[in-house]
Order: sequence, then C-alpha cells, then structure tokens
Amino acid sequence: MTAITATTTATAFPGGAAPALTGVVPPVCTPLTPDFEVDVDSLRRLVDFQIAGGVDGLFILGSSSEVAFLPDSHRAVVVDTVLRHVAGQVPVLIGVIDMTTMRVLDHARRAVRAGCAGIVATAPFYTRTHPAEIEVHLRSIAEQCEAPLYAYDLPVSVHSNLDHDMLLRLAADGVLAGLKDSTGDDGSLRDLLVARNDAGLTTFSVLTGSELTVDSALRMGADGVVPGLGNVDPHGYATLYRHARAGAWDLAVREQERLLRLMRIVRAAPPARMGRGSSALGAFKAALQLRGIIDHAVTAPPQIPLNEPEIDHVRRTLIAAGLV
Amino acid sequence: MTAITATTTATAFPGGAAPALTGVVPPVCTPLTPDFEVDVDSLRRLVDFQIAGGVDGLFILGSSSEVAFLPDSHRAVVVDTVLRHVAGQVPVLIGVIDMTTMRVLDHARRAVRAGCAGIVATAPFYTRTHPAEIEVHLRSIAEQCEAPLYAYDLPVSVHSNLDHDMLLRLAADGVLAGLKDSTGDDGSLRDLLVARNDAGLTTFSVLTGSELTVDSALRMGADGVVPGLGNVDPHGYATLYRHARAGAWDLAVREQERLLRLMRIVRAAPPARMGRGSSALGAFKAALQLRGIIDHAVTAPPQIPLNEPEIDHVRRTLIAAGLV
Amino acid sequence: MTAITATTTATAFPGGAAPALTGVVPPVCTPLTPDFEVDVDSLRRLVDFQIAGGVDGLFILGSSSEVAFLPDSHRAVVVDTVLRHVAGQVPVLIGVIDMTTMRVLDHARRAVRAGCAGIVATAPFYTRTHPAEIEVHLRSIAEQCEAPLYAYDLPVSVHSNLDHDMLLRLAADGVLAGLKDSTGDDGSLRDLLVARNDAGLTTFSVLTGSELTVDSALRMGADGVVPGLGNVDPHGYATLYRHARAGAWDLAVREQERLLRLMRIVRAAPPARMGRGSSALGAFKAALQLRGIIDHAVTAPPQIPLNEPEIDHVRRTLIAAGLV
Amino acid sequence: MTAITATTTATAFPGGAAPALTGVVPPVCTPLTPDFEVDVDSLRRLVDFQIAGGVDGLFILGSSSEVAFLPDSHRAVVVDTVLRHVAGQVPVLIGVIDMTTMRVLDHARRAVRAGCAGIVATAPFYTRTHPAEIEVHLRSIAEQCEAPLYAYDLPVSVHSNLDHDMLLRLAADGVLAGLKDSTGDDGSLRDLLVARNDAGLTTFSVLTGSELTVDSALRMGADGVVPGLGNVDPHGYATLYRHARAGAWDLAVREQERLLRLMRIVRAAPPARMGRGSSALGAFKAALQLRGIIDHAVTAPPQIPLNEPEIDHVRRTLIAAGLV
Repeated sequence: MTAITATTTATAFPGGAAPALTGVVPPVCTPLTPDFEVDVDSLRRLVDFQIAGGVDGLFILGSSSEVAFLPDSHRAVVVDTVLRHVAGQVPVLIGVIDMTTMRVLDHARRAVRAGCAGIVATAPFYTRTHPAEIEVHLRSIAEQCEAPLYAYDLPVSVHSNLDHDMLLRLAADGVLAGLKDSTGDDGSLRDLLVARNDAGLTTFSVLTGSELTVDSALRMGADGVVPGLGNVDPHGYATLYRHARAGAWDLAVREQERLLRLMRIVRAAPPARMGRGSSALGAFKAALQLRGIIDHAVTAPPQIPLNEPEIDHVRRTLIAAGLV
Repeated sequence: MTAITATTTATAFPGGAAPALTGVVPPVCTPLTPDFEVDVDSLRRLVDFQIAGGVDGLFILGSSSEVAFLPDSHRAVVVDTVLRHVAGQVPVLIGVIDMTTMRVLDHARRAVRAGCAGIVATAPFYTRTHPAEIEVHLRSIAEQCEAPLYAYDLPVSVHSNLDHDMLLRLAADGVLAGLKDSTGDDGSLRDLLVARNDAGLTTFSVLTGSELTVDSALRMGADGVVPGLGNVDPHGYATLYRHARAGAWDLAVREQERLLRLMRIVRAAPPARMGRGSSALGAFKAALQLRGIIDHAVTAPPQIPLNEPEIDHVRRTLIAAGLV
Repeated sequence: MTAITATTTATAFPGGAAPALTGVVPPVCTPLTPDFEVDVDSLRRLVDFQIAGGVDGLFILGSSSEVAFLPDSHRAVVVDTVLRHVAGQVPVLIGVIDMTTMRVLDHARRAVRAGCAGIVATAPFYTRTHPAEIEVHLRSIAEQCEAPLYAYDLPVSVHSNLDHDMLLRLAADGVLAGLKDSTGDDGSLRDLLVARNDAGLTTFSVLTGSELTVDSALRMGADGVVPGLGNVDPHGYATLYRHARAGAWDLAVREQERLLRLMRIVRAAPPARMGRGSSALGAFKAALQLRGIIDHAVTAPPQIPLNEPEIDHVRRTLIAAGLV
Repeated sequence: MTAITATTTATAFPGGAAPALTGVVPPVCTPLTPDFEVDVDSLRRLVDFQIAGGVDGLFILGSSSEVAFLPDSHRAVVVDTVLRHVAGQVPVLIGVIDMTTMRVLDHARRAVRAGCAGIVATAPFYTRTHPAEIEVHLRSIAEQCEAPLYAYDLPVSVHSNLDHDMLLRLAADGVLAGLKDSTGDDGSLRDLLVARNDAGLTTFSVLTGSELTVDSALRMGADGVVPGLGNVDPHGYATLYRHARAGAWDLAVREQERLLRLMRIVRAAPPARMGRGSSALGAFKAALQLRGIIDHAVTAPPQIPLNEPEIDHVRRTLIAAGLV
C-alpha cells in the first residue's frame, strides 16, 4: 500500500502528529469512449495532467468520477489503469460507493488488493438508514479491510448526514482515518474541526468537498480539499492550497474567486433540460476536451449530453478564465 | 422465458386485452445464514410456502428481499435457486436494482439469461436525477433486454417520483409492461389507473405495493399487489385477492383489516434503536422463523437485529392473528 | 354554538356513539374582488350553492379558502359573512391556521366567539417542531377554547406529520373531536381508523382530505370528506357520499371516477409558470366563475393568475364533465 | 426613519458606494414573563446590553426573536418598546414574518409607521410556492412600503430557496436593499457575493446568518452578520467584526472559535426531548438570565422549557467561556 506523505506544515497541528492525508486530492473524472467504455488513454493523460498540476493525491471512483454510473468492470479498469500509471507518485484513494455493507465490502476488497492509499465510503443509501446502522456499517468496513477508511458525508446523494460525535468516536477508535465533507455546510465543518482539535485527534484528516470555500475551510483547519473542478484546473487548486499553507491569504482568496468564476461552467444546461449532475459532469468533461486533455466529452447514460450552445457556454467561460 | 398467464377475469377490461401480470406477487424475502450467506434451503421452503399459499407470481430481489444488501454473488444464488425451484409453476419477476443504467443492465442481462418473466427497475438514484434522464434510463433498459420491463415507483428509496405521462407514453411505446406503485399515494395511483383505462392501455399491468389498501386498489382497477407482508401470510393476500375478484368486497375488507393488524409486527423495534427498514425486515424474518418456514431470522448488515423483547412483539402479534 | 347532527347510520359504529361530524364538508373557497377584498356577495352565493348541493357542513378558512393568503381582517369578514348567512343550516368549522400556539389562540378565540361548530388546527410550522411540542400545542388550544378541536394533518404545508398514538391519546382525553387527514396516505389513514375502532373511540371523527379516494376512505371507515373540489361540484361529492352510505359501492366508484376526471382542472397551468397551489386554486375559482357562482376568478397575491389558455383548459374540462 | 450609517471602510468597495447596512446586527430575543407577556423591562435591558456590546444595528422580530410564536399584539409591544428605547442610536430592522403577501403587508405597514430602518421578509410559506411567486411577493412588498426591504433566505423554515439571479435583478431594480442569508451554504453565499460585485451592485447589503463562519463570510465580502448567539455575547461578535475590518484575520479566527465553543449551549436538550429550535432559544434565554440581563428564561408555547440539568449545561458552557 502506498504511504501517504504528510505535506502540511507542523504549525497546523502544534501539539500532535499531522494527519496522513492533506492537500489537493481531486476526484478524477472517468473519460469514456463514444460507446461508453473507459477511455484508458484519456484517463492516463488526465492523471498526468493532475499530477503535473501539483495535486497531492488522487481520488478515483468518487461522485465526480461518475462512480454511480460505472459497472464493476469499468471500475476495475479505472482502478487498474490509474494505480499502474500513478505508480506511487501520489497517494490514490478509491471510492467504494454502494448501497450497503456487503456490497461495499466487495468493492473495498478489490481496492485494497489493488494497493490503494485509502478507501472512501458513504453512509448506506436506498435503504432507510439510521445512525446506529451507519456506525455498524463503517465499523464493519474498517474491520474487514486493510486500508485506511475515509467517511464520505454526502447528504445530497445518500439523504442522511454523518453525526459528528460518531465521526470522532470512530476516529478515536482507529476506525476512520479521515472524512470528506461534502455537506456544503461550513459551520458544521468548523464545528467538527474544532471538536477534533479539542479532542487531540490530530491524525484524523478532514477534507472539504466544497470547491468554492477552500480558502475558508483551510483557514478553519481543514487538511485539504477534494475539488471536482480540480479536474479542469488542478494548477488553480494547487496554487490556492500553496498560498493558504504559506499564509498568503489574500492571494488564496483571489485564486479562489478566480476558480469560483470558472465553476460557472457547471451551469451550462438549463434545469428544464437535465439534472444538475448531468450539467456539471458534462461541463467538466467538455472543458477537459476543450483543453485537450481527454478525447471525448461523453458522460455515462442516462445522463443527457450537453448540446452545442451548452458546450459553447463552457468554452466562453474557459476563455474568460484564460484556460483555452 | 416463462410465460405469464393472465388470471384476471375479462370483466376487469371489457374492451381490451387483459394485462400480462395480475394477482398476488410477493417480494420474496432472502433468508440468510448466521454468517450472512443465502440460506438456500430456507429460500426453497419459503418459495414453496408462497406457492402453496396461492400466490400468482413471485418477485425476487426487491426491496423486501434486501436486494440493496446483497452482493452480486448472493443475487446470483437467489436467482438460480428460485428459478430452478419454481420451474415455471408461477411467473418470477427479478429486481435489477442499482444506481444507473449500465449497472442496471448488468443485472438485467443476468436476469434475462436466467429466464425470468420480467425485470423490475427503479429510477436512477444516488445521482441527482431528472425526468428526462429517468425516461432515457427506462428506454435504454428495455431496448437492451429481452424481457418485459416493469417500472418501480419507490420515492422513499430513490427520492424521485415517476411521472404518469411518461409512464403511459412508455406503455404506449411498448417500453414498459407494467408498474409497481409503492408511492403510498392511492389518489395518484387511481389517477394513473383512470388515465391508463381512458387511453386503452389495458395490457399495462399496475400493481400496488401498499399492503394496507389492497382491496381499495383492486377496486380502483389495479391488477394486483406486491405485498412485503405476503411473505408472512401469503394465504391471506391470496384470499383477499380472490374475494376482490369475486366481487365479495365485504369479505375483502375484512381480510384486509386482519392483515393490517398483522402488519403491526413491523413496529417491533423503537425508532431510537434502528431504522424502520431494519424493524420491518427483521419482523418479517422473525415471523417466518416463528412460523417454521425459515431457519434463521438473520438480516444483512448493517441492519440492527431484533432483540428478544422485539421478537416477542412479533410472536404475540402472530398469535393474535392465529398464525402460530 | 351550532350543534352538529350525526348523519351516519348506526351501522357504521355498531357498538358506540356516532362521531359528531360526518359527511361532506367542503373547504369553502374565498371569492375575492379584483382589488383583493372579500367578495361578500359571491361568498354568500357559494355557500348557498354548497348547501343546495347537499353538503353536510362547511369548513371555512382552510387551505382551499386561501387562509394562508388572507389578512386577519379578511378572515373576520369571511367568518362573519358565512356564519350569519348559514344561520345554523349546517355546522361550520373554522380553520385557525397560524404558526404557533399563541397566534392560533387569537384566531381560535375569535372563531369561538363567532359561534362555530369546531375549529381546525395544524401542527406548528415555520419553526422546527417536535412531537412533544405538537402535543403541547393541541392540548393548549383545546384547554383554552370552548369549541370542538379538529387536528389537521397536512405535511405538504407544515412539513411534519401527526403521530397516530398521539392522536388517539388526545381523542381518549377529550382534547380532539376529530381529524382532517390530508396526508394522501390511505394506508396510514386506515391504520388510524382500525386503531380508533379497536380502541372504541367511536366519537372521534376522521375525515379525509383526499378528493380522489373518498369511496375507499369511507369503505375503510372514514366519517366524511373535506374535498377542495367540492367547491366546484358539491352535488357530486354529496352523491358519492350518499351512495357509499347506502352501500351502493359501484355507484360510488363511478361517481368518484367522474370527479377524478373533473379534478384535472387543477393542472391548468404548467409547473414552469406557477406553483401547484396557484394552479389548483386558480382552477377552482375559474370553474366557479364559469359555472356562474362567483363573480371573479381572482386569487390572492402572490399567486400567479391563470391566463386565457389555462382558463380554457378549465372550461373544456367542465364541459366534458357536463358542468357548463 | 432612522438613517443607517455605513461603518465599513471604503476599501471593501473600492469602486462604488458602500452598502447601507453593515456590521453586527443581532436578532434580538424577546424576553417573556412567566405568563407569556412581553417582559418590557428585560427587553430594554437586553437592547442596552446589545448596544453597549458594540453592535451596529438591531433586528427585532426575527426567528431568534420567536417571531413565529408572538401574537400581533406582542409584536406591537416589541416594536414600540425597542424603537422608543433605541431612539436612533443604531438602526433597527423589523421582521415582517408571515405566510404570504397581504399578511406580510399588514406587518410591514405597522413597521414602517413605527419608523424602522428596514423590513425583513422571507419567501411565502405554508403554501407551496414558486420562484415566480416569490418574485411577485417581494416586488409587491417593496412597492407598497416606504422602507428598505431585506430578503431573508431561510430554507429551514420556509422550505424554499431564494434564487440568486432573482436577488440581483431585484437589487438592480431597487426592490431589495439587501439580504440576510441563513442558508448555511457559504459556497452559495460566495457565489452571490462575487456576482454582486461583478454586477457593481455595491449598495446591496449581504449579511450572513451563519454564526460559526462570520470571519470567512466577511473575508468573502459579506457586509455583516445577524448572529442569534450575539444576544448572549454581543461584545464577542463586535470584536470579531472589528478584527475582520482591521484585517486582523488571525484574531478574528480566534474570536470566532471562542464563539463557536460558546454556541454549544444550544445543544442543551437531547433531540428526544424537544426540537432544536426549543433547545437553542431556551439556551439563549437561559444564558441571558444567567448573565443577569433578563429576568426569566421563559420561551413561548408550545416550546418545551429547559429543565435543570439542561440549564446547567448552559451554565457550565458560559463559565468555560468566561461569561459568568
């Protein structure tokens, strides 16, 4: 298993060990061919682009990777392609997204065998879950898998929240190595960060999934970010992170605002035409194609493809951002 | 592929062909061993118990089958066990529950190869979906699978609803063979039934998943029912259905009220202890064990098992219903 | 205070007293003038139309009365106009819809002074409420008001549900005289009805607000209906109720299906143009104007008025139903 | 009408006019007597405490003021008491919280007559609203009231969100003077702030209602904060704001973290006992009583009062914060 090198300065955690996972860890898009197979060449180029952009790790098979759309065979190709290609240059986390424990364990065992730096699991979904069941779920995964486990708080997809007391209990018990917080609620995130620090759980990594408030999250003590938009502009997020770690907050704010304007690509399509997910993932892929990184802007079914005017919205936004 | 024999009388659809699927089609529980393998012997006994109870078909790998909890290998065992054991005595529908199109297609192809009478698919979930994407999803599945496709309207699990205009459009286009309505909204169900009849789409089967209003649903024109509680008392639902088809509505009401009281087994556990799903599925399995049909009342992780007082609630309710 | 005469036959409650409130109790629309004052003449004609249509009671200041849109001064005009005009011909219930206890009590005291047959209150809203607080709320209203109190279960507006155990506890304690169930969940309604009957609480009136399943609800043991669509066709609902009470269920079904088709007037406007409430209330009022009962189809701001094509949809639906 | 003095430095808006409303504007609690009347003496002391604490304005009849619980007569007492007592020392905003336009206008006209610096209105609630209706609602209020109108984005209470394009359109049209953002979504807040600045709408005030991320919000360009917790510690929020405006961000972070720990008073009661609103408002009032500002910690019905152990939780948290 690849070791993850701590990249935060010691100042962030004066009294304790630094967390294992820090910095910019983009959820890597999964390029597809026109007949919906994994486009392996494009995926390798995308990985190279991310690493050249200065990211600190990669998260494959997350929501921005269209994990919910990929059959297991596609997931296997993604894992195999990325882990071989990265070859230890940066740590690679693997999402093990599925409905409940035994299904997640199937994915998790494959991820561990492939040699990942950590696995990322949500609360159960489809089933109406319960806090007690979420805790059993996470404990069961950790017990049966030899890889650091990261919890993924993603209420927009799983329709439940992860309780902070539970997270810290699992951190203290060595069940969880960290959290990806995609709640969009930075007050809640900060409450967790302060509680974590007060409890001395300094090795528990907290990464935000909120792409528009990374500077704030880092200032609050978050250890890093998992930005979907990082696919399109990894250099931007790496720059933002570097400014923040150097204490150059004004520069961090400026970079974040630039990225916020770039994020407007996700509004390519009107809500009458498709879901917000289709629009966002279609825009990420269209931008990557326009930037010459991937060959096709294809998204997996049943997502609606962007049409020409919508792709043009992406193009104009990229031009305004100086990216094409 | 097993042919489904129409069992409704012609009087229900005076002017047109009868729908292919009618009657009582229980969503068969998946008995598990204490180490969470499929308990094949118990599953066979449960299938025999259902058929002896007079059901008109079986629905395997539905929500009451804990499909969300079963790895693909378990799903395969269930499909293989049931289809061999039933051997055409009654039609068998197979749930192909997964997040999006390509994943569903993997399950659907396996189901078709196994020789089912139909497959049952929900709207996409986990992803934030959209009406246009739901329609693409269902059309894609139908195009690529040689089996009648039934749509499964289950907002409590997938957090979206199936639009009635879309359902009837897909029925008219031959995409959908029918619907399992588990919305719990009988006004909406009736609106669909009247619109279906007005459109002359008499071969489109509409089955209700609402176990407590089967008599009403049949009176409104529904073709059948998929009752989770039917696992525990298939004879009761078969009797109810027979009364309804015979026009003996007072007897149907009485049987439905008996079954409603039996349904109170699902409230075995308090909401502070576990989710409603855990309590209901745990109660179904406890009841089946108490009735001597299955060997273990084990539910899949991360569901919380019922404790002794909770199982006793099930026992007392069964005794009151004259079932043990 | 007007006495409410029981109109159900004794057979519905063989062992106990009949509930106080039964039959068809439409939630009376509030006609407005073009400058948004209460159109008193139209309101009187609408009340006459309802009574001539054979309704068993009237519910003023409910959701279909646009109570949420009426200032207190308008509410006072409605109460005064209707109670004087009805003059005891039928019982009149008054909605006391507001956010929390003290505000509701202000409305309730005015309603009691006016001489109503009962008041109708929801759970608290706007505030994030709790089952314990809902119970305090209803008990406080009952304690401080000398009028029968009806609970109004309306999750679509108040975003919480009334717990059945609580309802029956309050019924047993004499706090509640009855319930208007607008959950749209007939399985839940039946569960309550069976539990009520098993507990011998036969004087606790349960009325359904689901306009499309009135025959089923009555068959399950409901005591009556509060149909918004009854504004447009009170004769229809009175006929349906009479058939049901006479045990002529086939005729009841047929009448209900006719009313279901009439209900399609509420889909006059597309969801892109306005909310479903605006479309439904606009359609009810347009239909009443087209039928010559009220002078203006004006709805209160900020609802969007129906445009000509939308009103034409209402007209064509009425013509198809033989109502103009 | 009281003029509002801009207190931000010109640097925040280099190219344009500063917004009218900036700084710390606490939503003032409404002290009650044991028989649920407005405790006028305590209210005056609380106002003095806020002003002595260095706040820039006051917001009365907001959610933290229990506006949803106060009858109109109580609201009138609060308005009269506070406006007389403040006598122009700081601007006073008045919440005009009610379900729809005409009801809101009744409150708004009274607020304007009383001489407020602005009124604060939410989207319609109880009714199922629609973006087009929200816009009509806000435009109607502004047209008919001679006071600056602030929109209040509070999805937890009204179950809809305010669209950013609409907000900026209304700002450009002079309909809205500003926004109180209580969405808890700082990414969304920032998106609005950047769009506002890009559009040159620099007089449109944006205040956050998120008490735990005030430093971040100010850094993003927010003009101020409306902190419920400011009732208990106005000095803390004034200090935080002063640090932020001086660019002393490290001090701002430290003060914010102190206030975050103080905020834990709101978790006084367990979710099994009462709603989160009851617990939070009960804790604010208990803290104010413990600090000697108000006479009674009474909250309005049907809220559940804190019990002794729960009040003790508040006391211990205050002691830890050095506030008693």
